[in-house]
Amino acid sequence: MSKPVTAAVLMIGDEILSGRTRDINLQQIAQYLAPMGISVAEARIVRDEQPAIVAAVNELRGRYTYVFTTGGIGPTHDDITADAIAVAFGVDISEHPEALRILTERYEEAGTEFTPARRRMARIPHGASLIANPVSGAPGFQMENVFTLAGVPAIVRGMLEDVGHRLEGGEVARSVTVKAKGLREGDLAEALARLDTEYKTVSFGSYPWYRSPEDSGVSLIARGHERAALDKARDELAALVRAQGREPDIAEGES
Amino acid sequence: MSKPVTAAVLMIGDEILSGRTRDINLQQIAQYLAPMGISVAEARIVRDEQPAIVAAVNELRGRYTYVFTTGGIGPTHDDITADAIAVAFGVDISEHPEALRILTERYEEAGTEFTPARRRMARIPHGASLIANPVSGAPGFQMENVFTLAGVPAIVRGMLEDVGHRLEGGEVARSVTVKAKGLREGDLAEALARLDTEYKTVSFGSYPWYRSPEDSGVSLIARGHERAALDKARDELAALVRAQGREPDIAEGES
Repeated sequence: MSKPVTAAVLMIGDEILSGRTRDINLQQIAQYLAPMGISVAEARIVRDEQPAIVAAVNELRGRYTYVFTTGGIGPTHDDITADAIAVAFGVDISEHPEALRILTERYEEAGTEFTPARRRMARIPHGASLIANPVSGAPGFQMENVFTLAGVPAIVRGMLEDVGHRLEGGEVARSVTVKAKGLREGDLAEALARLDTEYKTVSFGSYPWYRSPEDSGVSLIARGHERAALDKARDELAALVRAQGREPDIAEGES
Repeated sequence: MSKPVTAAVLMIGDEILSGRTRDINLQQIAQYLAPMGISVAEARIVRDEQPAIVAAVNELRGRYTYVFTTGGIGPTHDDITADAIAVAFGVDISEHPEALRILTERYEEAGTEFTPARRRMARIPHGASLIANPVSGAPGFQMENVFTLAGVPAIVRGMLEDVGHRLEGGEVARSVTVKAKGLREGDLAEALARLDTEYKTVSFGSYPWYRSPEDSGVSLIARGHERAALDKARDELAALVRAQGREPDIAEGES
């Protein structure tokens, strides 16, 4: 089995920490990476403050194969991610000719004034390569194993298209989800622990949900690289649920 | 001005990192704490792995006034948060008499078998006090400045009711949000930077949204403790938006 390929997601922005905005980038980045065999192993959310960003970037880039940052690369005074990345890597930052060309053209076409604030978006840490932004022009950038993306989800989605080809993937894990509506974790815990001990190549997880007494249950997840073992695990999970008098709802995917 | 009171939220669970589940606990904890003058300054999501949990708990509890963990306190083999907290604090863990009493009664009332797996939920690190769970019985617990809560959002919400009275709040910050549909950050960046320099007690933020070319805009946020300054900042933000030919959408709240 090859070495696992891991990623960390670092979300930058007071608005997520305050609860005003609910993040969706972690989910979309994780789901983009899974089919490549890259799993997100940690995520952090920090404030728009340089020391916090620098410390997190430097911890995470040493620990995981790839790091993705989101947020803080726009034209306003609180957009400080590019400078923070430069500090984290100990390099200078200045206007990148290609980024400047992209932005100049973009605003010319739109008939919008290319203000000094907008021009800040051309500032890129030295040694970084650009990441195309098909939505609004202003590029992200890659610095070694760190990919700096926008914060707006639609733009992140677009930028990922110019990121995928730069990543070296790993072995793709597959997962099976067996949903058991009406059951509680305790109904299945012993049997699940037994399976987790028994299967060497499959890991088992259990995630309860509870929205109301009528809408509650458990999602059992089996995850692994070996197809045959995973199929067998799926059948055993489904049998566990049926043994409790419930009909399992089964879904499969990359994970 | 009093010392700022800060919190960190540590979410424990592979299912959030994989993107299968989209977290909502960060948002509900942040919104619960804001009216007490406690602001969430950092959040992390780690895997269901003891070393990752222990390291994060110990880093965060030294750095912030309060830490809230979510997830991993159920009856299944992958519920390892209580043990991880015990390791983080260097204390033993065993069945807590009051927790055992609550669980025994609960399962007796429900006519459900109180299995060994369910009994695991009575294991509490030594020195911790219980946090009541009005939804499903199994308690969370407080260990010094660390509050260990469930992962299911409805249960987290219930547990917070038994947490609030234990917290010492800070000065409550208020925020004003001025939404400008149809504008882009670059239209307002220079004026916003000027305001941010000019106002000593108000901080300004700018958060673009983009769902489609027709549904895009910028949310301008002003945040501070002084009512009069904040009112003035609100009026200036609204005027900026009107100067660009758009009608601002204004909301106020604690933050």
